[in-house]
Amino acid sequence: MKDRLDEQLAFLLECDKMKSIYRQTYIIADEDRGAAENPPTERGSIHRRENDAEHTFHLALFAVILAECADEKIDLLKTLKMLLVHDIVEIDAGDTYAYDTEGYKTKAEREAKAADRLFSLLPADQRDEYRSLWEEFESGSTPESRFANAVDHMQPLLLNYSKGGLSWRQRGVAPEKVKERSQVVGKASARLGEYISDVLDKAVNDGYFEKDGTLT
Amino acid sequence: MKDRLDEQLAFLLECDKMKSIYRQTYIIADEDRGAAENPPTERGSIHRRENDAEHTFHLALFAVILAECADEKIDLLKTLKMLLVHDIVEIDAGDTYAYDTEGYKTKAEREAKAADRLFSLLPADQRDEYRSLWEEFESGSTPESRFANAVDHMQPLLLNYSKGGLSWRQRGVAPEKVKERSQVVGKASARLGEYISDVLDKAVNDGYFEKDGTLT
Repeated sequence: MKDRLDEQLAFLLECDKMKSIYRQTYIIADEDRGAAENPPTERGSIHRRENDAEHTFHLALFAVILAECADEKIDLLKTLKMLLVHDIVEIDAGDTYAYDTEGYKTKAEREAKAADRLFSLLPADQRDEYRSLWEEFESGSTPESRFANAVDHMQPLLLNYSKGGLSWRQRGVAPEKVKERSQVVGKASARLGEYISDVLDKAVNDGYFEKDGTLT
Repeated sequence: MKDRLDEQLAFLLECDKMKSIYRQTYIIADEDRGAAENPPTERGSIHRRENDAEHTFHLALFAVILAECADEKIDLLKTLKMLLVHDIVEIDAGDTYAYDTEGYKTKAEREAKAADRLFSLLPADQRDEYRSLWEEFESGSTPESRFANAVDHMQPLLLNYSKGGLSWRQRGVAPEKVKERSQVVGKASARLGEYISDVLDKAVNDGYFEKDGTLT
């Protein structure tokens, strides 16, 4: 039997791959400071997509700073553990864009298989704990998972707003679709839900969506 | 007076800049999955440095999985909050390489100034809470800060080991210097300290350091 610490470190080092899975959302900063020797930009573009590790870092910070906005009492430590592993299935299953209806058809199956492999790298007790937390996140059935889902929807929306709606326009996403998905925020926090609703109204007024934006 | 939520979001969106501050350490994965459209590699190299957001994500995950290894009782939530903000001063002060003695001379002053600006974006109560956590991390004077410092030293060392010592060799760092700095790990966890000591011995035996490696 492998040593417990070896198993834990195998899992932790496997999660390094989160740094190489790119999402549809762009980071706000246009210029990378390490650009001279290390330009992580798209070819011919000053914009750079966010990866899963960066996204997860940002969500964890959102959660600790905004925990007070949750309408229900939440266990913040549990919420953080949940957020830290909520996207690791993408190491095997890849990122499925929120508005990709085709990709969503196979998402659950691909991600369940990924969860089987990835969480099994951990010792049995931690495998069960973190797999359960991932399932709880997916279910959105508890105060913690509702809040985790709220920040998971809120953060890319705010990045997108800060980028003038770049990834919405690139994909031709309709504002109604974004509004529909962002309802998740209000389920965890009336205050954050209202804030996000206002941001979306401003985005529409400021022309951040294509006029005939429909989901392709 | 600005609304509390506006202040919190200003801070959170400012922290997006963590995604553009590059460290000396390389991520393990050689190939970025989004490489076709989004190659965050160094020019002419298949290696890519880690940024502060990715590093922080990884440390938080290290902390939750390895918390049981701490020799002293730690408040894990406090440790996570501390880790989430421990590097944000680098948004203004930049990353100072662990083995850069010149840079270290001005590090404290540059970082204190950065802390003044960055934590002040938050509402007063959170400004005080997170600034204190950052100072506690820097001091290493509590069980939580000792453990946070341990994972902060352990993670880059393991990434470096996984990359065959690439950044040590590039900078001509001597193994004695790495060993000296890694003593921090053993102060929080005898078990992790021993593990890291073994990894360094293997790194020396496997030729992961330059033979005449000295700090430039």
